[in-house]
Amino acid sequence: MTTPSTAPRHRETNITADPEVPAIRIVREFDASADRMFRAHTDPALIVRWLGPRDLEMEVDVWDCRTGGSYRYLHRRDGEHGPEEYGFHGCFHEVRPDRIVQTFTYEGYPDGVSLETLILEELEGGRCRLTVNSIVESFASRDMILASGMERGVVEGYEQLDELLAQEDDR
Amino acid sequence: MTTPSTAPRHRETNITADPEVPAIRIVREFDASADRMFRAHTDPALIVRWLGPRDLEMEVDVWDCRTGGSYRYLHRRDGEHGPEEYGFHGCFHEVRPDRIVQTFTYEGYPDGVSLETLILEELEGGRCRLTVNSIVESFASRDMILASGMERGVVEGYEQLDELLAQEDDR
Repeated sequence: MTTPSTAPRHRETNITADPEVPAIRIVREFDASADRMFRAHTDPALIVRWLGPRDLEMEVDVWDCRTGGSYRYLHRRDGEHGPEEYGFHGCFHEVRPDRIVQTFTYEGYPDGVSLETLILEELEGGRCRLTVNSIVESFASRDMILASGMERGVVEGYEQLDELLAQEDDR
Repeated sequence: MTTPSTAPRHRETNITADPEVPAIRIVREFDASADRMFRAHTDPALIVRWLGPRDLEMEVDVWDCRTGGSYRYLHRRDGEHGPEEYGFHGCFHEVRPDRIVQTFTYEGYPDGVSLETLILEELEGGRCRLTVNSIVESFASRDMILASGMERGVVEGYEQLDELLAQEDDR
């Protein structure tokens, strides 16, 4: 008897700091084809449903997701001391089905820029592996990002993406 | 008697490999205001007159030089074995008078991407200092770029830019 034992493992989000360069690598597997994952990352009607932590609502301001395009979005929540709003923007260096390369700035720290490379690989059984490499200009900036609580946003975002992929009718 | 002795030094192009991160830094001073230098980097009619080595002609294919825009250009020459053409493209993450942040890919190595930050600082006497920080994903890529002959292109390009700035009537 074969016991499919990958279920807990493949939902784990692996976030690591590169030992050599000021980069963060995120690796995670999903129960969806690379094609569906690509749509979940490029269609603004889909991305607002999963990106970021659970307690923030996402609103797209600019979304021109193509090679040479750009984006801007806002994350909002009702905080303890009233409404909070966080802006993010960047440009798309390359958008193709297995690879998205984009810049990324959190507007609260406007001169900090990451270069992000997202890679989608098909796996057996209609699943895929997502790898995101994000490089910044210094180890100090990288450590600040790791200390900022980005992990919670990434992990919860991918949990929301799992839920979206399980719900979607267009698979 | 005061001897102005900066003339040779300030035309020197200083190209260094960062010891900590996979980045290249270029520093050079110019006999022009930061404003004129900004125009020389953003106006396509000006940039084609100086960017790159002397033996290549530059042709702009796409030039949308604004925050969130993109570019593509070609460098051409008649080589020993016929015409040669090299393509380059990227997106503009941010374009403001003292700072341009953009991605950069040489199309002969399409998955290699640099994140370039260009900073302009005014100096006394109507001069300015240009600093370009270019970071890539690995030390191997950085060393390949340094070994590719980029130095000649950078040095000759800035010599051509000196000549353009000396000629221009709109100063």
